[in-house]
Amino acid sequence: MTATDDLERARAELVMINDQPYNAEAPPHALTSEITPTARHYVRSNFALPTHDGTLTVGGAVDHPLTLTLEDLRAMPAVEHAVTLECAGNGRLDIRPLPAGEPWGGYAVSTAVWTGAPLSDVLQLARPHPDGVEVRCEGADSGYHIKPVLAESGDRLTFVRSLALETAADPASDILIAYDMNGQPLPPVHGSPFRLIVPGWFAVASVKWLTRLDVITQPFTGEFQTGHYIYQWPDRPCEPVKHMRVRARITDPDPAAVIPAGTYTVRGKAWSGTGPITAVHVSLTGEGDWHEAELEPAAGPHQWQNWMFRWQANDRGRHSLRARATDASGNVQPDVPPWNRLGYGNNAVEVQYVDVI
Amino acid sequence: MTATDDLERARAELVMINDQPYNAEAPPHALTSEITPTARHYVRSNFALPTHDGTLTVGGAVDHPLTLTLEDLRAMPAVEHAVTLECAGNGRLDIRPLPAGEPWGGYAVSTAVWTGAPLSDVLQLARPHPDGVEVRCEGADSGYHIKPVLAESGDRLTFVRSLALETAADPASDILIAYDMNGQPLPPVHGSPFRLIVPGWFAVASVKWLTRLDVITQPFTGEFQTGHYIYQWPDRPCEPVKHMRVRARITDPDPAAVIPAGTYTVRGKAWSGTGPITAVHVSLTGEGDWHEAELEPAAGPHQWQNWMFRWQANDRGRHSLRARATDASGNVQPDVPPWNRLGYGNNAVEVQYVDVI
Repeated sequence: MTATDDLERARAELVMINDQPYNAEAPPHALTSEITPTARHYVRSNFALPTHDGTLTVGGAVDHPLTLTLEDLRAMPAVEHAVTLECAGNGRLDIRPLPAGEPWGGYAVSTAVWTGAPLSDVLQLARPHPDGVEVRCEGADSGYHIKPVLAESGDRLTFVRSLALETAADPASDILIAYDMNGQPLPPVHGSPFRLIVPGWFAVASVKWLTRLDVITQPFTGEFQTGHYIYQWPDRPCEPVKHMRVRARITDPDPAAVIPAGTYTVRGKAWSGTGPITAVHVSLTGEGDWHEAELEPAAGPHQWQNWMFRWQANDRGRHSLRARATDASGNVQPDVPPWNRLGYGNNAVEVQYVDVI
Repeated sequence: MTATDDLERARAELVMINDQPYNAEAPPHALTSEITPTARHYVRSNFALPTHDGTLTVGGAVDHPLTLTLEDLRAMPAVEHAVTLECAGNGRLDIRPLPAGEPWGGYAVSTAVWTGAPLSDVLQLARPHPDGVEVRCEGADSGYHIKPVLAESGDRLTFVRSLALETAADPASDILIAYDMNGQPLPPVHGSPFRLIVPGWFAVASVKWLTRLDVITQPFTGEFQTGHYIYQWPDRPCEPVKHMRVRARITDPDPAAVIPAGTYTVRGKAWSGTGPITAVHVSLTGEGDWHEAELEPAAGPHQWQNWMFRWQANDRGRHSLRARATDASGNVQPDVPPWNRLGYGNNAVEVQYVDVI
């Protein structure tokens, strides 16, 4: 499959947010399935589709610098995880005032099955020095502009992120260097030939088109680590964007659906990067009537969970449904999108109206 | 036309918000016309459709109490005005946290031509006492419940509002006791046989099914005057809901439209109860690029105005358009819906996204 074919296929089923670089949401109905088909998985790009030389170089503060090919990675013990990835800017369009940045609606979230070599195994081969503190993770993608903040800048930027070495080297983190997505080699738009998959984190951490890993002895600073992807709160210190925030979505009925009066099974998904979902509640009036929904156990540790609620929709007219998730860390969704200058991490309670006729 | 026929007709073209009492929004495309056809004019009811004995009694602190029939009112000099009416709860569905109350989207606003007797003429016939301060205006509609605050109350309530006598008696206020809507007798759902029309005010002031006017010598207190229809701000004293707040709406393209790249004429309406609209600005990026739209002069003093903006929609992808109106009093729309406990007066800048393909 050529990069052009791949882009064309992705365009056919997705909702385009930006043409260049290519960013597109999943179609709303894609959220109803457990595993998102690859062609319906949302796509986030910071730059144009890069070329990649097919190798991964591991260096920096390590005893054994090495260069691995795709074949080398495939020859290592493989691990497979279904992982929910969500863009940190997902839901930005509902924040007021609307921040600049890609105007994502609510569908920059998908779940695929990723197969790859554990990052911890690769780091073990390289043997990090004891004074290593982070792993600098470089993608092959680069370009001149990041809208809107750097629109005036002439610097060429490469996409680079870092992870704490302790996290990266821990097998329990389940971080993969993934080469297969839903049982097939990664398509170009999703980071071929291999990419990081960092479960539980907003997807910015899951560096696509991975080319270099360097153990570093000082914390990394860079545009995508300390410039963007920072919560710039109006009233408290800035914080880096890390784990996905607890969130429930209503997948059925559709937004602004018109349904006949009677019993209706409301369905949805819920996920969090700070622990499994422990409860989803549904409100039918907004007057504090939080009814506990039925929550299915997670099929795996890193993927969204199904929930459902039987609604006696007897009154004709407009109803505003609210869904609110709680996770094992005790995090609960807020009522109001948490405003921050760059518009990240909107996990406000979803309000969806439905007209009963 | 029977009340049942009337309800059936209204149901056919409107978007129902509540079945009983009947509340329904205009269909979105109804905002594109200058004058809203009667069947597409939004409907707000606090109680079930009342019966009305066909008379208007004028009393209280007046020298000449009187009772007028529809024929009496039609025999007086008639005045005609196109008046934009907007529900005070219009746009509630975009306020976060979502307040309880009828979940109006953005289409509880319409403009009809109203014909009737000036309220000032009727008051002049009755000759108010010098110590009169307000006119108590009573509708024929009553019932047991107002959701949500009084759901537990067993009191039977009648819909009553008041106006300052000075305002009510001033011919320049253009307040009508209207019996015709768009050239036809008022339909039952719009307040037959006659109703108040108070230009510039949120429509709660335009009492439907008017039965009594009483000049009173103390300010009126009542559920619909001092209980509901009050801005309960989180951080400053309560204020009564009075004039419509300055607001622009985008009527073309449709919300979430998909349009081809090229030049696109964005169109909309703008209105305010605190003066004519003096400017509408459109932003294409949210980065302070407020472009002045072309504003048509108002066709009359009490109706919405058209505006348009030629947009060079050359970039494929999602665009978030913003429209912001300014009125002659210097009022400008805020970026964020002004939260208040009962969810009135949301006139935040409209953000509408459009996908260019």
